[in-house]
Amino acid sequence: MSESVTTSFNCRLPLDSSGTIRLGHGSGGKMSASLTSSLFLPILGNPILNELQDAAVVEGCSQIAVTTDAYVVNPIFFPGGDIGSLAVHGTVNDLCMRGAKPLYLSASFILEEGLPLSILEKIIRSFHEATEKSGIMLIAADTKVVNRGAADQIFITTTGIGIVGDKVPSANAARAGDVIIISGNLAQHGMAIMCAREELELETQLLSDSAPLNNLAQKVLETSDNVHCLRDLTRGGLASAVNELAQSSSVGIVLDEKHIPIHPQAKAACELLGLDPLYVACEGRFLAIVAAEDAEKVLQAMRKDPLGNNAHIAGVVIEDHKGTVILKSTVGGNRILDKLSGEQLPRIC
Amino acid sequence: MSESVTTSFNCRLPLDSSGTIRLGHGSGGKMSASLTSSLFLPILGNPILNELQDAAVVEGCSQIAVTTDAYVVNPIFFPGGDIGSLAVHGTVNDLCMRGAKPLYLSASFILEEGLPLSILEKIIRSFHEATEKSGIMLIAADTKVVNRGAADQIFITTTGIGIVGDKVPSANAARAGDVIIISGNLAQHGMAIMCAREELELETQLLSDSAPLNNLAQKVLETSDNVHCLRDLTRGGLASAVNELAQSSSVGIVLDEKHIPIHPQAKAACELLGLDPLYVACEGRFLAIVAAEDAEKVLQAMRKDPLGNNAHIAGVVIEDHKGTVILKSTVGGNRILDKLSGEQLPRIC
Repeated sequence: MSESVTTSFNCRLPLDSSGTIRLGHGSGGKMSASLTSSLFLPILGNPILNELQDAAVVEGCSQIAVTTDAYVVNPIFFPGGDIGSLAVHGTVNDLCMRGAKPLYLSASFILEEGLPLSILEKIIRSFHEATEKSGIMLIAADTKVVNRGAADQIFITTTGIGIVGDKVPSANAARAGDVIIISGNLAQHGMAIMCAREELELETQLLSDSAPLNNLAQKVLETSDNVHCLRDLTRGGLASAVNELAQSSSVGIVLDEKHIPIHPQAKAACELLGLDPLYVACEGRFLAIVAAEDAEKVLQAMRKDPLGNNAHIAGVVIEDHKGTVILKSTVGGNRILDKLSGEQLPRIC
Repeated sequence: MSESVTTSFNCRLPLDSSGTIRLGHGSGGKMSASLTSSLFLPILGNPILNELQDAAVVEGCSQIAVTTDAYVVNPIFFPGGDIGSLAVHGTVNDLCMRGAKPLYLSASFILEEGLPLSILEKIIRSFHEATEKSGIMLIAADTKVVNRGAADQIFITTTGIGIVGDKVPSANAARAGDVIIISGNLAQHGMAIMCAREELELETQLLSDSAPLNNLAQKVLETSDNVHCLRDLTRGGLASAVNELAQSSSVGIVLDEKHIPIHPQAKAACELLGLDPLYVACEGRFLAIVAAEDAEKVLQAMRKDPLGNNAHIAGVVIEDHKGTVILKSTVGGNRILDKLSGEQLPRIC
């Protein structure tokens, strides 16, 4: 029972001499505890998380919004962000698309054996900065380690909980006559990832649009009582989002290509790679479907925010062609803008 | 704008002729939608999940408990359970260790390209059955697909939200004089996994103890107003759990080896593999730290429940040796039961 007895019963592995994640870091034993106390908590800690309880207990409210997403983006660092900030922004954005104020976040980290600790630290620092910027508090977390080759460096799943406000935009609330407003330039996130992955060099570096949309969404909701839908333009891009809304609301949607804002460099990169920018994921853009009479004031409110300064009115909701999206092309023709079948850009988020 | 135009703009991939997960199933496009509508929703669907909103909106309450865990167990099917039921039980159990009633669940599925759809279906059916049995409702979900070799078949992260009751056991609430009650036989889950992984054959098959503990935990809390700590005995087993509680509560803990219930076959398997059953993970066992005067009635209440029918009083909390766990061995000596340093059994949950 003396200290020497303790020592003899334990193989004292060096906790971090290799500077990489090892299976023992996922054990629930000392190496796990060391990873938590020396890396995760100093960066991510707060009074609730530091308690290390089985479940965090926090104040609730009468209605809550809940969303979850896994992040498997490749590469894990890209111009304008990384998997850490992305895992916060994506989940914050899903909450505020329902008019909810982001409140609490949980995160699970699946780590591949051999991941350099310096990389992990960089990611969780970025994760933490994103939570601070978004005003969301990490209250529960978990880390698992899998053997080399059983995962690709790091996957993060975040679940967000928010307070529902008095306005709750919904995917099924678009009405004929409503107007579609797009908050800013499309296709930056997806093309920034693709350029990083393919080591494609453009004249100037294209940055991801990854950003927390809660302030901008809040402004939109404060400006008008007639905001029917909000939807962030993630996997599958604008085209997939409008298709989902057209189906959920059982309406037709007509988009006018010449009013859809697309970052010129993202457009160039899309042309180079043969991709349609309307299907490319953003991580800091959304669309609002708003009653026509409020569209102009919502547009002006968006444009005053740095994240909405290139917002455009780009379409209308119609009674006909229920569940269908029609694109009026710049050269005059109309075509159906369908959902993609398969994968355009795998592991974009 | 005719149907033929639509068709010509889309490569109509066969959605499931291969019977396996493909990258397109993670695209956010038609294949994703097909996977969701033909597999996930028919099994997991409910009015809230079926809305497919960015975030689910549900009733809250004044205080909520939140917990998250990633599940990376290998193999994904094992005697007595699979990764689907485990991902529900583990999170339900973390909630009820804080005295919370499990209410809502979110889940993210990270799938490896090539995973047979039949395997996925089996897992989500098992996941669903576990939610039904635990009385928890899946309200948000996400699916990502990564390329072959970038994950090992399937990883699931679940986040649980529960209503906090009027009693909130806490890791820091153990007091000198309290009694440690263990709810049932240790080491079954870990050894069931190990036997499955190593294809080790015992005389009779050892089953995982994976189970939802909410009813049993509720009974314990109803029986006594002096339940100070509850802790499920997952990664790192009993030894790690008591060490964490001794440290959080700044007390010493003395366990009496002869009163610690261990499944005989699990014990035999441990001996065969040279493992200490006190460090082996359970997924349906917990310990309660209870004021001495209530210990006997709590024990009797536990034993009336099928999941607690082999509960034992196995230790006491002491003032001395703060942060330390002492094991009185069956042969008379005492030793410090320390935390393991590294990994005994990787990917056990």
